[in-house]
Amino acid sequence: MATQCCSFELQSELEDARTGHLDLTHGRVPTPAFMPVGTRAAVRCVSSSDLVATGASMVLANTYHLWVRPGHELIRNAGGLHAFMRWDGPILTDSGGYQVFSMRDRLKVTEEGARIRSPEDGNYRMLTPETAIEVQEALGVDVAMAFDECLEWPADRPTTVDSTARTTRWLKRCLAARRHADRTAVFGIVQGGMFADLRRDHADELAQMDLDGYAVGGLSVGEGRENLLDMTSVATERLPRHKVRYLMGVGHPIDIVEAVCRGIDLFDCVLPSRAGRHGQAYTHAGRVNLRNARFKNSTEPIEAGCECPTCTEGYSRGYLRHLQHVGEMLGSRLITLHNLHHYQRLMADLRAAIGAGDGPALERIRARAAVASEMSR
Amino acid sequence: MATQCCSFELQSELEDARTGHLDLTHGRVPTPAFMPVGTRAAVRCVSSSDLVATGASMVLANTYHLWVRPGHELIRNAGGLHAFMRWDGPILTDSGGYQVFSMRDRLKVTEEGARIRSPEDGNYRMLTPETAIEVQEALGVDVAMAFDECLEWPADRPTTVDSTARTTRWLKRCLAARRHADRTAVFGIVQGGMFADLRRDHADELAQMDLDGYAVGGLSVGEGRENLLDMTSVATERLPRHKVRYLMGVGHPIDIVEAVCRGIDLFDCVLPSRAGRHGQAYTHAGRVNLRNARFKNSTEPIEAGCECPTCTEGYSRGYLRHLQHVGEMLGSRLITLHNLHHYQRLMADLRAAIGAGDGPALERIRARAAVASEMSR
Repeated sequence: MATQCCSFELQSELEDARTGHLDLTHGRVPTPAFMPVGTRAAVRCVSSSDLVATGASMVLANTYHLWVRPGHELIRNAGGLHAFMRWDGPILTDSGGYQVFSMRDRLKVTEEGARIRSPEDGNYRMLTPETAIEVQEALGVDVAMAFDECLEWPADRPTTVDSTARTTRWLKRCLAARRHADRTAVFGIVQGGMFADLRRDHADELAQMDLDGYAVGGLSVGEGRENLLDMTSVATERLPRHKVRYLMGVGHPIDIVEAVCRGIDLFDCVLPSRAGRHGQAYTHAGRVNLRNARFKNSTEPIEAGCECPTCTEGYSRGYLRHLQHVGEMLGSRLITLHNLHHYQRLMADLRAAIGAGDGPALERIRARAAVASEMSR
Repeated sequence: MATQCCSFELQSELEDARTGHLDLTHGRVPTPAFMPVGTRAAVRCVSSSDLVATGASMVLANTYHLWVRPGHELIRNAGGLHAFMRWDGPILTDSGGYQVFSMRDRLKVTEEGARIRSPEDGNYRMLTPETAIEVQEALGVDVAMAFDECLEWPADRPTTVDSTARTTRWLKRCLAARRHADRTAVFGIVQGGMFADLRRDHADELAQMDLDGYAVGGLSVGEGRENLLDMTSVATERLPRHKVRYLMGVGHPIDIVEAVCRGIDLFDCVLPSRAGRHGQAYTHAGRVNLRNARFKNSTEPIEAGCECPTCTEGYSRGYLRHLQHVGEMLGSRLITLHNLHHYQRLMADLRAAIGAGDGPALERIRARAAVASEMSR
């Protein structure tokens, strides 16, 4: 049953794309929205006030990592994750399912949950649906993700059938384990691997459960863009129109635009911050590698007319290239700020085009995002 | 001969301590002043607009490092160091003498200059008084330091005599090499090792040259606080009262207060930024190591009432400890901002006490700085 602490109001639709308002305990999120990734209660190099300056309204943190360090009890005692990281807006935590997936050589998954040998301290930990909810409620986040099994790709049909059924059983255990439904919403995750009928059936099954919100999971694991978008469509076609839809871990600017055009409202991805740390900046002429010697003498900003802190303060490509070259972490920070702003600007442009019912504008955004997603030559 | 691009106006004196205005090509610096160290055209983790927020009015960069990467011609073509690093206020560059000293196992010093095998690219480079001035003028800085020989400690008397005489000859070559005396001042450096009479003689010799400003160099090399302050006094007693005096590479808060009380006007030191990167924060109750587990559960700011960005935004010791623990560089940045602000606040307090002729206030600052310089228990 959906809870009071989460409501989604659809505002406008342009074919399958939509704008809306997601209202959560810590405020309103205009959708489509992009959540920067603050795995360990911090987006790399960037503080919460910096995030506000990039235009973010909601951030993502990671249940598994915060459970291990510093521990959810510590954060609860500090007044919750919002107080701990000084972020006043909504926070969503992924449940740990993807981290379990990424550590599959160090874990054993049973019906009970996942037993993990932590790379941080070598200890064994048992992550179950009940633990995942307990930890996320202790963090006091706005949205807790149900604990799911994220399959590796490729996976055969019998494995996918079994895994998807387990994800549903785990979801029910998550819902039963809730103690703070007054403030923490729980989103279910549609799985089903790369089998369209399994995805469809799972979306139908979850739709009938009247959840707070719906995620599409198990994608962006190496399946390629066509699979990613096909599986997204299959799910959104069956999910309730008046509930928020979140595509986990996606993606490049063009993936985001394509998924918005398939009815997705919410995104998270490490790309803008990871690319920034590696000296890559998103521009409307493509992604540029600022470690490249060809920028040595450039006095141009990353992008003319860009309103991010880095471009408005006038830092040049040549200066950023120098900082990368000598290993000054200020360079990573300045490029990360630009990239996060680029993503937020993309979302604002999408909201404006959809809100105005302006199909040609949406096409222009799609074309620009396709260019921005490729490396510039 | 002193040049037009640098003037120092004494405002008030309290015994040997003084306040004043140092007017340079890019603006006015109220003294006593502390310059944060941006070795490679960036203070670690911190942008130029961040520096403004900490209260800095002048920054230091490094001639040798910028000469190697990205090269002074590149920076000249980018419009000079101010445009390159987006810092509008005055910039001073150290001449490279100290870097030569720190690389003494890879160089050969002759009367001509220092031949250095660069650790960055393995190439041999010849740094001479003429090169040092050429590079610094190309950078377009407000103050170029004369190229000097920084002796290792301890050094015997004959070596110190020879080295000090060479520093004077190199200073004269620096002055003769100037092409932009209209915008770049040159400060001479008093050497003389730990021999009071040699220091005194050298200060007298330089005083007669009517330079733009005077630095006390070759200190903070392991000689201990007593030697440091004794050699400082010996120099300032002989330097012209109406010229600015700069103590290079110093130091702990208490060293700064003691040197101000001995007539020094200008400082630089890597301590606040280096300590920040290592998780150490300056407070009036001592330096605290925020990597320490005892701060795990702290919801207190680094220092109550502190007006730095980190404390005013409410980041707690517990959060900063977590960021250090998991290696998030945001932690280093937030502590560095606090430390730089702590130093700038110290300078503002010193200027206020001296300006008001308030000896007891100066004593209180001295007592607090002594505490701030020690590790808190």
